[in-house]
Amino acid sequence: MAKGRLTLVSLGPGGLEHLTPAARSALATAEVVIGYGVYLDLIASLLRPEQRLLPRPLGTEVQRSREALLLAAEGHAVALISSGDIGMYAMAGPLFEQLDALGWSPAEAPEISVVPGVSAVQAAAARLGAPIAHDFCCISLSDRLTSWELIARRVEAAAAADFVVAFYNPRSVERHWQLGRARDLLLVHRSPETPDAVVRAVTRPDEHITLTTLAALDVSKVDMFSLVLVGNSQTRRSDRWLLTPRGYRVAPDAESGSQAHATVGELRSKPQ
Amino acid sequence: MAKGRLTLVSLGPGGLEHLTPAARSALATAEVVIGYGVYLDLIASLLRPEQRLLPRPLGTEVQRSREALLLAAEGHAVALISSGDIGMYAMAGPLFEQLDALGWSPAEAPEISVVPGVSAVQAAAARLGAPIAHDFCCISLSDRLTSWELIARRVEAAAAADFVVAFYNPRSVERHWQLGRARDLLLVHRSPETPDAVVRAVTRPDEHITLTTLAALDVSKVDMFSLVLVGNSQTRRSDRWLLTPRGYRVAPDAESGSQAHATVGELRSKPQ
Repeated sequence: MAKGRLTLVSLGPGGLEHLTPAARSALATAEVVIGYGVYLDLIASLLRPEQRLLPRPLGTEVQRSREALLLAAEGHAVALISSGDIGMYAMAGPLFEQLDALGWSPAEAPEISVVPGVSAVQAAAARLGAPIAHDFCCISLSDRLTSWELIARRVEAAAAADFVVAFYNPRSVERHWQLGRARDLLLVHRSPETPDAVVRAVTRPDEHITLTTLAALDVSKVDMFSLVLVGNSQTRRSDRWLLTPRGYRVAPDAESGSQAHATVGELRSKPQ
Repeated sequence: MAKGRLTLVSLGPGGLEHLTPAARSALATAEVVIGYGVYLDLIASLLRPEQRLLPRPLGTEVQRSREALLLAAEGHAVALISSGDIGMYAMAGPLFEQLDALGWSPAEAPEISVVPGVSAVQAAAARLGAPIAHDFCCISLSDRLTSWELIARRVEAAAAADFVVAFYNPRSVERHWQLGRARDLLLVHRSPETPDAVVRAVTRPDEHITLTTLAALDVSKVDMFSLVLVGNSQTRRSDRWLLTPRGYRVAPDAESGSQAHATVGELRSKPQ
């Protein structure tokens, strides 16, 4: 039997214009595509009738990982999908945990590879201008698998060390108080006027962006399709943009510089 | 005169299979493409002879930003490029700072948009398995524009709060001691055996990955084309993979589940 392979495929934030050729190719060559049903919907236009699709509900990440591994081990070409980047709060975690637990020999294990993608923090930042132009951290506010104590410790550390913070999984119906607490922890170290954005369904048809401040953040408007981005002490708002300076100096006498230029040919023929 | 536009384009980590369709389209429709010469080389195969290319040296980010803004304000379609994600330690920062400094009215300003991309941390993580499956932060070790005191404070905070850490700009010829100091700061809170990876030129022909531990990290092997990824207290190495668990439990009796499946047609016809 031919050796199977499993590709972990990042779908990007939603809009297919952000799906990489590597991801598209991995989807095209898969016999079986497995993932959360909503994510399969995102890429339905790219799939062919003869491909086997395995939509799986939320909360079945462990079983889904095993299923993907076992199908690949049986000789199939399997694509396991997540939106955003599959390595960030997505299926790469449980998949490699299950692989570790199975303890397969090299001969038993299928070929495994991971295709990275654009995550929500980057897609949100792109809409906002330059909010993550300096050091930032990603923190998930889901305490389903992580204690609130550890989450709070990370929020406090990020606040004290002046990181820009991207909150993933900021709020859901059952998880409604964590974002308010996180905001209060940030407010210990950061001004109430700190620019803050709620970016919902970024790059999807129902995208919605709210620019606000840390103190004015309306937690009740945030849901599980949102990412909350909080600036550091230097982040400022200018018109519709958010900007976290890196320290570059303004050079008012910089030249307009339409002078020096090269064609593709010239560029190819000389080292940079 | 027609209104010009400026698109900030993320090129991804290097391999063109990770360049999104949005980025490709922005490059294809630009009259002028401006960026660091090495990055123009990365995409030379995508450019046409009639496009005007403006290769610019490192260290000219402020002038380059102004140049891009002024060319767009003159009515041109301009693409300003960075490798990785242009919002992360790249041109979006200086560009929006210059835009702010220019203080243009809405009528004067060109249309500006940003195309996100896959950053080095994600491309590196994909090669490694699942090292950033839990909270992580990105820290630049360049003290050209940020004080070492602030950088050290961030490293200490990340260490104490058990973040996975991705070091950007870890080392260059002039900036040779910072990575060693950062490692020592991490070692105050983290085991010498903490898994650690040096990922150089990820997705490019000369890609090279070294899996090591925090204590064994050979700083002298790291250069400006490398990203250094340090696991948290839970990160473990299994075979050739790095895994940072999120807390998912192993379910040894999970079914192999080749059962329930749907075709594209079925999937399209029912809500998830």
